[in-house]
Amino acid sequence: MIIPQPYLLFLGDVTDPLAAKTARGISVWRPEQCIGEMRLPGGTVSLGLDELDIATARARGAQTLVLGTANAGGFLPEHWKGTVRAAIEAGMNVASGLHYRLADDAELSALAAEKGVELFDIRHMRPELQVGSGKKRSGKRLLTVGTDCSVGKMYTSLALEAAMREIGLKADFRATGQTGILVAGEGIAIDAVIADFIAGAAEYLSPANEDDHWDIVEGQGSLFHPSYAGVSTGLIHGAQPQWLLMCHEMGRPHMRHLPHQPMVSLEECVEANMRVAKVTSERVELAGFAINSSNYGEQEARDYLATISAQFGVPATDPVRFGIADIALRLKEHG
Amino acid sequence: MIIPQPYLLFLGDVTDPLAAKTARGISVWRPEQCIGEMRLPGGTVSLGLDELDIATARARGAQTLVLGTANAGGFLPEHWKGTVRAAIEAGMNVASGLHYRLADDAELSALAAEKGVELFDIRHMRPELQVGSGKKRSGKRLLTVGTDCSVGKMYTSLALEAAMREIGLKADFRATGQTGILVAGEGIAIDAVIADFIAGAAEYLSPANEDDHWDIVEGQGSLFHPSYAGVSTGLIHGAQPQWLLMCHEMGRPHMRHLPHQPMVSLEECVEANMRVAKVTSERVELAGFAINSSNYGEQEARDYLATISAQFGVPATDPVRFGIADIALRLKEHG
Repeated sequence: MIIPQPYLLFLGDVTDPLAAKTARGISVWRPEQCIGEMRLPGGTVSLGLDELDIATARARGAQTLVLGTANAGGFLPEHWKGTVRAAIEAGMNVASGLHYRLADDAELSALAAEKGVELFDIRHMRPELQVGSGKKRSGKRLLTVGTDCSVGKMYTSLALEAAMREIGLKADFRATGQTGILVAGEGIAIDAVIADFIAGAAEYLSPANEDDHWDIVEGQGSLFHPSYAGVSTGLIHGAQPQWLLMCHEMGRPHMRHLPHQPMVSLEECVEANMRVAKVTSERVELAGFAINSSNYGEQEARDYLATISAQFGVPATDPVRFGIADIALRLKEHG
Repeated sequence: MIIPQPYLLFLGDVTDPLAAKTARGISVWRPEQCIGEMRLPGGTVSLGLDELDIATARARGAQTLVLGTANAGGFLPEHWKGTVRAAIEAGMNVASGLHYRLADDAELSALAAEKGVELFDIRHMRPELQVGSGKKRSGKRLLTVGTDCSVGKMYTSLALEAAMREIGLKADFRATGQTGILVAGEGIAIDAVIADFIAGAAEYLSPANEDDHWDIVEGQGSLFHPSYAGVSTGLIHGAQPQWLLMCHEMGRPHMRHLPHQPMVSLEECVEANMRVAKVTSERVELAGFAINSSNYGEQEARDYLATISAQFGVPATDPVRFGIADIALRLKEHG
């Protein structure tokens, strides 16, 4: 279930930079795995990679065409299909984050089988799962958790993996969402598994490992989000983390998409996550805070981070603005 | 998505009374909806209902044949298929709690379509779901929760529904597991929905209702069970209960199937459930305790219940041994 890299990133004909979030994430975190990008006429979004056609990308070693832009409705537009077909014919795998399954397209499936390549439907990829057991296992694990959805858990996890590797730690990012899966080349979209298997999926994703090896598990949702807390709970139990890293957006007024749902305090959120983690982890500590402060000026952000850091006695940073080296160092010294 | 009642309960040729748990549950809680039972040669389990063949059951008004026994592996044995076929040919619907989907059997599907009857695969039945919203809604809701799996949440919910109706309250059992769904004739197997939709499924099951109407929502799993806590969490958030009823088995040494996982204390379990419920419920109270005391003598059970009741200041009962009228009365007076 590993998606062969390197990739050719397909951007379609989108004009909204936000629609290319997945492709951008891959190009930021795994530039060495991106051979180039490809657009259709009318497309205005670029990642600044070499603009290549299928044949050239294939000649330069691209293994997989990635449909890296969201599409309203999540289907495969008819005028994108020619590119998918051409990639398969050139011997490339195709990975898609669309709701629509490439595997359900009889023509594309038959062509892929004929050419001996794979179609990866990221939202639907899952191995045969067991229910979680909660059995203790070796290795170190850190899970990013959050006050809410979309507060930077994936970014923080990948930034921490990079910072830990930089200071000589063995760290691997474990992906639980579609962009993360394309970055890592493997993983499970944990919100898409059958409810009984959430914790089991997290155990599968971060198995027993060497004592000095770190899994940095990408968190999802929030214990305080009325839509997704079940996923967050199962993920905490299954990941069995010794460390939690709390992510938050400074100044967010309420839970995402739910104006009636008040934002939880950092204190209550940390306590709740610790309590849930203790169900399967003998020892769990707070590694620090990763704060998205992009709506505030630098001094305001620094003041806020200093206040949190003093209150909880752990490092607090905005990883985009100020990096995450302090937290990596703390894990090296105390992990 | 309502399963037409009354039923003919099919027991196959099983010899283990435990394998007929689902059929027994239906006959205990909805005797008026059970026209009779049917066995194959070799079957030794009986529910004490009239033993009928398909034609007689149909003539007496049976609408649905229920495959009400578990089968190792969860598939449909070849020698049961003749009965299923005969039921469809006689114009009966078929409801199955097997893992195997009747709908995946081309012959049975075609026959059902031809005869204009439905195949209900309980484990796979689900409406188009939305993610949960946590929006406040009218009506009263009580959710059974537990220290563990298999501590009597379904029994307690159904016993409470009956006791509440007896004292004139408008109460409806809301089913979240397969036996409960067959008893109620509708519901969602909540551990079988996609993880993102757990809370949404619970909201769907217990929608806004009259101010004096009670939904008694069947709980699943436990916040402290490492396999299923995600389901339990989403169910609490989606059910948005004003009342929780805590179920527990007296003397259970550890979490079900997990000898390494210690049993949680009642105190910690009540607190954790209250905290989780408060994410979506403005006000939530403990209705009482339903304790399975079947491994203990009557006096020991009474002493234990009295101790808990004094400690928490709420009624504590073993609903099988002592009924659940006290809790129903408390809800009538304070609900």
